[in-house]
Formats: sequence, C-alpha cells, structure tokens
Amino acid sequence: MARNRKTISSDMAWSTVDSITVKGKSLTQDILGKMNLGDYAFLEILSRTPTPEESIVFSAVLATLVEHGMTPMAITSRLTYLGAPESLQGAVAAGILGMGTTFAGTAEGSARLLQEAIPNPQIALSAQEIKTMASAIVAQHMASKRPIPGIGHRFHKPIDPRTPRLFAIAAENHLSGHYVELMKQIALCAEEAMDKPGLLPVNATGAIGALASELGVPWKLCRGLAVIGRTIGLVGHLAEEMKNPIAREIWERADEESSAHHHTSNP
Amino acid sequence: MARNRKTISSDMAWSTVDSITVKGKSLTQDILGKMNLGDYAFLEILSRTPTPEESIVFSAVLATLVEHGMTPMAITSRLTYLGAPESLQGAVAAGILGMGTTFAGTAEGSARLLQEAIPNPQIALSAQEIKTMASAIVAQHMASKRPIPGIGHRFHKPIDPRTPRLFAIAAENHLSGHYVELMKQIALCAEEAMDKPGLLPVNATGAIGALASELGVPWKLCRGLAVIGRTIGLVGHLAEEMKNPIAREIWERADEESSAHHHTSNP
Amino acid sequence: MARNRKTISSDMAWSTVDSITVKGKSLTQDILGKMNLGDYAFLEILSRTPTPEESIVFSAVLATLVEHGMTPMAITSRLTYLGAPESLQGAVAAGILGMGTTFAGTAEGSARLLQEAIPNPQIALSAQEIKTMASAIVAQHMASKRPIPGIGHRFHKPIDPRTPRLFAIAAENHLSGHYVELMKQIALCAEEAMDKPGLLPVNATGAIGALASELGVPWKLCRGLAVIGRTIGLVGHLAEEMKNPIAREIWERADEESSAHHHTSNP
Amino acid sequence: MARNRKTISSDMAWSTVDSITVKGKSLTQDILGKMNLGDYAFLEILSRTPTPEESIVFSAVLATLVEHGMTPMAITSRLTYLGAPESLQGAVAAGILGMGTTFAGTAEGSARLLQEAIPNPQIALSAQEIKTMASAIVAQHMASKRPIPGIGHRFHKPIDPRTPRLFAIAAENHLSGHYVELMKQIALCAEEAMDKPGLLPVNATGAIGALASELGVPWKLCRGLAVIGRTIGLVGHLAEEMKNPIAREIWERADEESSAHHHTSNP
Repeated sequence: MARNRKTISSDMAWSTVDSITVKGKSLTQDILGKMNLGDYAFLEILSRTPTPEESIVFSAVLATLVEHGMTPMAITSRLTYLGAPESLQGAVAAGILGMGTTFAGTAEGSARLLQEAIPNPQIALSAQEIKTMASAIVAQHMASKRPIPGIGHRFHKPIDPRTPRLFAIAAENHLSGHYVELMKQIALCAEEAMDKPGLLPVNATGAIGALASELGVPWKLCRGLAVIGRTIGLVGHLAEEMKNPIAREIWERADEESSAHHHTSNP
Repeated sequence: MARNRKTISSDMAWSTVDSITVKGKSLTQDILGKMNLGDYAFLEILSRTPTPEESIVFSAVLATLVEHGMTPMAITSRLTYLGAPESLQGAVAAGILGMGTTFAGTAEGSARLLQEAIPNPQIALSAQEIKTMASAIVAQHMASKRPIPGIGHRFHKPIDPRTPRLFAIAAENHLSGHYVELMKQIALCAEEAMDKPGLLPVNATGAIGALASELGVPWKLCRGLAVIGRTIGLVGHLAEEMKNPIAREIWERADEESSAHHHTSNP
Repeated sequence: MARNRKTISSDMAWSTVDSITVKGKSLTQDILGKMNLGDYAFLEILSRTPTPEESIVFSAVLATLVEHGMTPMAITSRLTYLGAPESLQGAVAAGILGMGTTFAGTAEGSARLLQEAIPNPQIALSAQEIKTMASAIVAQHMASKRPIPGIGHRFHKPIDPRTPRLFAIAAENHLSGHYVELMKQIALCAEEAMDKPGLLPVNATGAIGALASELGVPWKLCRGLAVIGRTIGLVGHLAEEMKNPIAREIWERADEESSAHHHTSNP
Repeated sequence: MARNRKTISSDMAWSTVDSITVKGKSLTQDILGKMNLGDYAFLEILSRTPTPEESIVFSAVLATLVEHGMTPMAITSRLTYLGAPESLQGAVAAGILGMGTTFAGTAEGSARLLQEAIPNPQIALSAQEIKTMASAIVAQHMASKRPIPGIGHRFHKPIDPRTPRLFAIAAENHLSGHYVELMKQIALCAEEAMDKPGLLPVNATGAIGALASELGVPWKLCRGLAVIGRTIGLVGHLAEEMKNPIAREIWERADEESSAHHHTSNP
C-alpha cells in the first residue's frame, strides 16, 4: 500500500546567505566575468568545464543553430508577440515549440544513429570497420525505406557551406574522431548505394550530430542544443520586430486571402 | 476598402546556394569558430559586435540569469519532460513560461525605471542631478505605494553577492555610467526615506537592469536576456533529470497529500 | 530558520481503485453521458453546477470565443504543427500564447472594470446610480488617456453583431443585471463625452466581460474562458491544416519577401 | 527558380461588417444560445453538426479527459501561474505541454491501432474476423516487445471504472461498432496470450480511442481531444490555485530537499 519515498536531490546549484554555487563553482568568483556563455552552457549540460578545444567546437555547434532567417519559428514568435507584447517569454516559448521532427530537432536523429553505432568512442576502430558500419546503416535504412538523417539538403547544393567549416573546426581542434568519420562514410555510402554521386553530402544537421557526439553530448540532449541556439535567434527576431514590425502584415494577408473565396460575389 | 499593403522585410539573415549571411556577416567565415556565443547574442539583439569590454559585461549579465537551482521553472520543465520526453522543446518552453512578473522578468522593471529617467545616457549628469532623480523616483513610488524594482532581497542578506561582483565587472570594463550610479542612489535614497539603513541594497535584478541599460539594451528586451540565460539552465536541469529523475516523486507526493483529506475514514 | 510547512490540499478530484470523484460528483454516475461540456467547465471553475439559465449564458460566452477565422493564433498553431507534427499539444499551446493584451485577453479588462465598480452585485442600484458610475468611469479613462475596454470595434460597424445577441441571451435567461446595464451605460456615456454618437457601442469583448460578471466569474479568470474557447478553435484549425495545409506557403512567402532586398543585384 | 505559389484558403470562418459565419453557420443565429459547447467542438473538428447520439458520446469522451486531479500538468500550470500571474494563457499552455506520450497523449495510440486495422468501418466484419485481427495485433506487439496501447492500468484494478461506463454510453447511443469490438477483443486476446486473465482490461485510454474512432475522429487528432478536455481542467486548477495557493509550497519543499545534502555540515 504505502509507496516508498524517493529522495529528491539535485547538484545544479545551491546558496547560502552570502554565496551561490553552481555545479560546484562559485558563481561570483569562478563564473561571472570569467567564463564565456558557451562554456557555461557546456558546464550546465556536461557537468565539467570544456577544454579550450572543446570550447571552440561546442560554441560553433551552438552558433550554427542560432539564426536561420525568417523560419516558421521566427514568424510564430513575431505573431505571438503581436498578441501578447507584455509576455515576451511567451513569444519565445511559442517559437521554440516549432523545433520538432520537421526542422531543428533533426540533429537528434543523426546523433542517435552515430551513438547507437558506436556506443563507446574510446574503442579503436579501423577505417574499414567504420566503412562497414556505414554500409550497414545505409542498407538498413534503404531496406525499411526510412530517410537517413544528416545527409542531403533541399537548398544548399552541391554542398551545405556549414558542413566543411564545422568539420574543419573539429579537425583543427583535434575533435574529429570516429563519429565524424562515420558520418562522412554514411554520406559516401548512401551516394553510391543510391547512385547519386555528389548529391547526398553531409548537411549541417549531420555535422552537428557528429560534433555533438564527439563532445560527449547524449543524443537525447541534442535538441536542447538547438533550443539554446534558437532561443538567442528568436530574441533577435523580437528585437527586430519591435523596430520594424511585420507580424500584423503577415497575419492580415493570410486572413484576407484565406477567406476571399467566401466573399466573392456570384453573378 | 482596399488595405494598403506594407512590405515585409528583415535584415536578420539571408542565404544563397553557397553562403549564409547573418546580420551582414558570413556565418562560416566570421562567426563559426570565431565568435563566442555571448557575442553572437549581442550581435543578434543589438545589430553590432560588442567591444571586448561590452563582451565581458554582456556575458556576465547573461551568466547571472542561467542557473538559480530548483526554481518553479526548473520543476516545471522536469514535470513536462516526464509527460512528453519526446518533445524536449516543450519542456524548455514550459519552463520559460514561468518567467513573468514574479520572478525572472523583473530586471525589466529596473531597466525601465532607469531608461525612463535617463532617456539619453550621452548627456552629462552631475552626481547631484542623479541624486535628485533618485529621490524623486523613491518619493513617487512611496506616494503610490508601489515597490521599487531592483532593491532588497528576501534571502541574501545583508547583500546579494552578485551585485558587487556585477558592478565591479562593469567598472573594470569602463561601463559603469549614469545608470549604475542612479541604481545605487535609488537604493541609498530608499533606505533613508524608509529608515531601513543597509536593508535595501541593489539586488541582482537591479544590477542586471543597470548593466543592460549601460549596454544599450532597451528595457522591453531585458526579459529576453533572462529567457536566453534561463534556457541554458533549463536544458541543464533536463540533462540532470535524465540521469537522476525527480519529477515523478515531486508529482506523486503532491498528488497524495493534496487529496489525502478526501480519503480519511471518518469513524 | 525553519520554514513553517503549509499543507498541500486540493478539492478538484480524487480516486479510489473503483471510483473517480470530481468536485464532489461521481465522474461515471453524474458526469459522463449526463453533463454537457459547458456545464462541466462551469463546475470546474465555479465549483457548482449551473442552473439551466446559467448553462445557456455560460455556453454562449464560451462559444463566442471559439472561432475568429485566420487569426495570428491560428497561423501560429499551423506553423508550429508544420515544424513539430508529432506534438499537437505544442501547436495548440503556441497558439494560446498569443492570447494576451492585444487580442483575446481583453474581456478581462471590461470584467475588471465592472467588478471593481460593483464588488457586490446583490446590492440594489438604481438606474441613476449606474449612470453616475458609468460617467465617472468614462471621465477617469479620458482624464488619464486610457482606452475604455469593451467598447468600439475596428471592423464591425455600426455594431458588432455578437453584442445584441449575447445581451438578448442574457435577458431571456434572467441574467441581465447591474453589470450588463453598467456596460451599456459606459458605451452611451463614452459616445456622448467623446461626441461620437453611435460609434462606440459595446463590442463582443465588453458583452463577454459583462456576462461573465453576471455569472460570478472573477475577472482574473476571464482570460481562462477565452483560452478554453480558443483551444477548441485551434484544434479545429489543425484539423483543417491536416487536410488543406497552408502553413508552409505562409512561411515561404514571408521568407522570400523579407530577404528579397538582400538578393537584388546592383548594376 | 521561381516557386509556384499555392493559394491560401480556409473554410473555418469569415465575416462581413454585420455577420460572422463559422463553418457555414451563422454564429449569432445558429450557434450562440443554440449549440452546446461539445457540439460546437464537433463542428469545428469534423465540419458537421453531430446527431443527438454522436453529441452524447463525443461529450462523454471529452469529459473523461477534463480532470484527473493533481497531475504533473496541473502542478505545472500552478507553478507557472506563480511566476507569471499576469499571463494566465502561459500557465495553461505550460500545462498542456505535458500531454505527450507518457500521459494524456496515449489515446492516440489505441485510435491509431484500431484505424489502421479497420481503415473503413462501413465494411461488414464478422465477430470471427475481428477476433483474428485482435490476435494478429497482440502477436505483433508481443513479437516486437512493444506495449499494446489501451489495455491495463497501474492503479484502477481490476477495472478502470470509466471503461464500462464509456462503452455503455456508446452502446446506448448505437455507436458501439467494429472499433469498440476490436478494442475489447484485443484486451481478451492479450490476457490469454500473456496468461494474465482479468488483468489487462481495456483502460480509459483504450475506450476513448475506440469511441473517437467510432465518431470518425482521425487518430492524428485524438491528442487534440485530450488538449480540449484538459484545458478546461487546467483553468479549473488555476481557479482553485487563486483561492488556495499551493504552488509556492510545492516549489519550496523541492528546493529545500534537493540541495539539502550540500548544506549538511560535516563534523
């Protein structure tokens, strides 16, 4: 009958009357004015401070996710701000809610693929072993007619400019390991197996999934990286909306056109 | 009858097949691997890159807002993740929605007070002029029985440890101007006018409002800074919740206790 | 040091292994198949079942709030569904977030005005006393240059067709009391004081505020009525979006036009 | 290069200066004061008015989803209201976001199962054919070790009291067809195949999935029914929270306990 109570514990932060400790560090002595925002995010998520190399790669991953122009999420935040300007938090939250399986949640897919293939990246793998893994992954997806996450792009052709840059940043910082290699091999195998040479390169999503995996971010948290990045972008869009409002115009056009056929007079 | 159409324009970002430009900068050449996350947020919101001094102060402001331990927002994100683990974006959004007038939205109030008092910080003001402003602000709030935003703290006594640190960072970086001075004077005037010496110091919220004002962030966007910071913290809480789940326990205890009086047998 | 613990109690619902009780009623015996949805909402919010007359008026109030066509909230829900079709709850939540001070949250304003003017509707008031109240309210708003909530409409001229219908429903059901009378008098006084005869009639928002007040709904909960009604409408929009998707088109047009000036070739 | 523009059209609602039409009906003449809220929801989602029998069954389905006591969603709404009492819409939205795969989104699963098994319910099926379908479904789920949606309950034993009541309402209203029969057979087959006689009855979620299917609600919209019902319940919880606030106590206890181990003095 009686349920066993579980203790509620957390190691995120704690305070005394004259100190605040976050993840074991003094907020005022170790973080404020000392740690940049990307490193603080790394500490929050991975419970340790990054090396200088990890810091650069992690920030590059987050930065890739900040701003994609007039996305559905940006329009959503602007429309919500129009209705409730007193609740900026609601406008950002509304925008974030569009980060699902269609758009920005997709790095999760490639990270999952890579981390399930290589649960322990410390174990050495030969180039041939990685190629074999890639072939198997491509074959499985083709057999079950599922799209392979992280390759191809509907707009940036032949190649998404973010991908080579992200891979170069990883390489320069000695963080280009098995996951990056596997992601590249998956793209090559897919192009060969589907006979689309040069048409299915690793896209930004695939590169992010690979780099997040190199950094030790569990795939279930990859969508969290996207949310962090995009939140910055959505606040940027609201800053622009305050100066140059466009939400009302987007709404009124859609409203007028969508019911126009009901107002047409029939002779 | 016919509505005048307004053009829909934005200068946030634009793409060609082989390039992505954000706020006039090349994403791949100027931002990825080069710009830290705090500076990118500054660019998004204020449409220019910060000076090295502004960079440090802006990052310190955001960092102050990241993590406050087991807040209502953190619990909310964890409970929402329990119900919909497949939609991490929804769990973060739910947490953000608690950032209103009670808690994290409050830096907005002190920033507004300061920016309405000093619309143009470029105009020189003497120490005496700022004192006079502060007296007037305190008197107005007392006359209308409104609390003065940015002073006093229910827990950190006698002083919130974040405040002296934030003010020191501003001073070290030559960004301690009229707004910081006015905020400090408001606290002193209030202590004198209410006869509470040493009991109404500037709190972290007041310091953030002052520093954001020094950086040129409009008060209407201050809640956006809080949202950016706290989003990082909420993803951190979800990372912990995945390893050490506590949401179910919080729920079950509340559920059991709240209806316990309906299950008591009456003899 | 030690905080006094407060008991956590609730009278919403409780269960045993073979029964579920909601607000003191058996869910299976008294509610399912017996109580219509509007009456159940009344029970949830006001902790008693409505009279037949209250039932009709309350349902009419909620029904007025369900559907307003292609509003910013409806577009927001559709755009969010485009991004995260697996999380329909997120799409509805995003739409709800636009119900703030600009649009659907506004019945709150007129209800507050009425309830603050007449805290106890049981006390008899003469027609002249209500007129005097209305004059004072109009004069106060004009003096402080605040708009009077609940009167005027930018589109439905000379009169919002919902208003006479809602007032007729209230009258037919003997629920047209002091609040309805005061709302009508406010509109008449405002037209006279601003010299706009026939141009500032009570709008739907004002009628809803008055009827909610007659039903005993506290003004702080009026936005909740709007949220209930609009949630039904937003699910309706998502049902249509699944059959006839328009979100992608709205997005792509906004995206193309907003960055078009950055792609214009300069000779 | 040039994208083909698609027309943006909708048949939800349209207005003229003196009329409002919703789904082809006059809001003022056909809906306000005439149609109950459940029927209006049916019209919004299924684009026609229900028969009297459909009306009763549809309302019973929605009513089942309104109130489940102190759920994670209810706590979430209350905590969010504590932080942002000025944005009631945000508190409801936060609560809704918890309706995912763990809790209230689950009727979707059983509706999907039933509708994929019987795409066209107009085609006659014998009792034996339905039994065969049920066996196959159970076997498939057992083979792939997936739980069967809609059967079993962790708390209500031996049977969820809502299930027989919902099935009785459907039968009384001549809406107990192939979907209800299949759902019942799935439970019986599962109990037999897993050798758990009487332990895996249809639960409320399974009954809702079956009834929604009988009414012609596509499985992708079933979560929308849950959102409509639960929104009413969450507004009810906020009404109670305003009178008897418990959110702060839930928060403070969690806050104290979660960091207690960091404050323990070590001798």
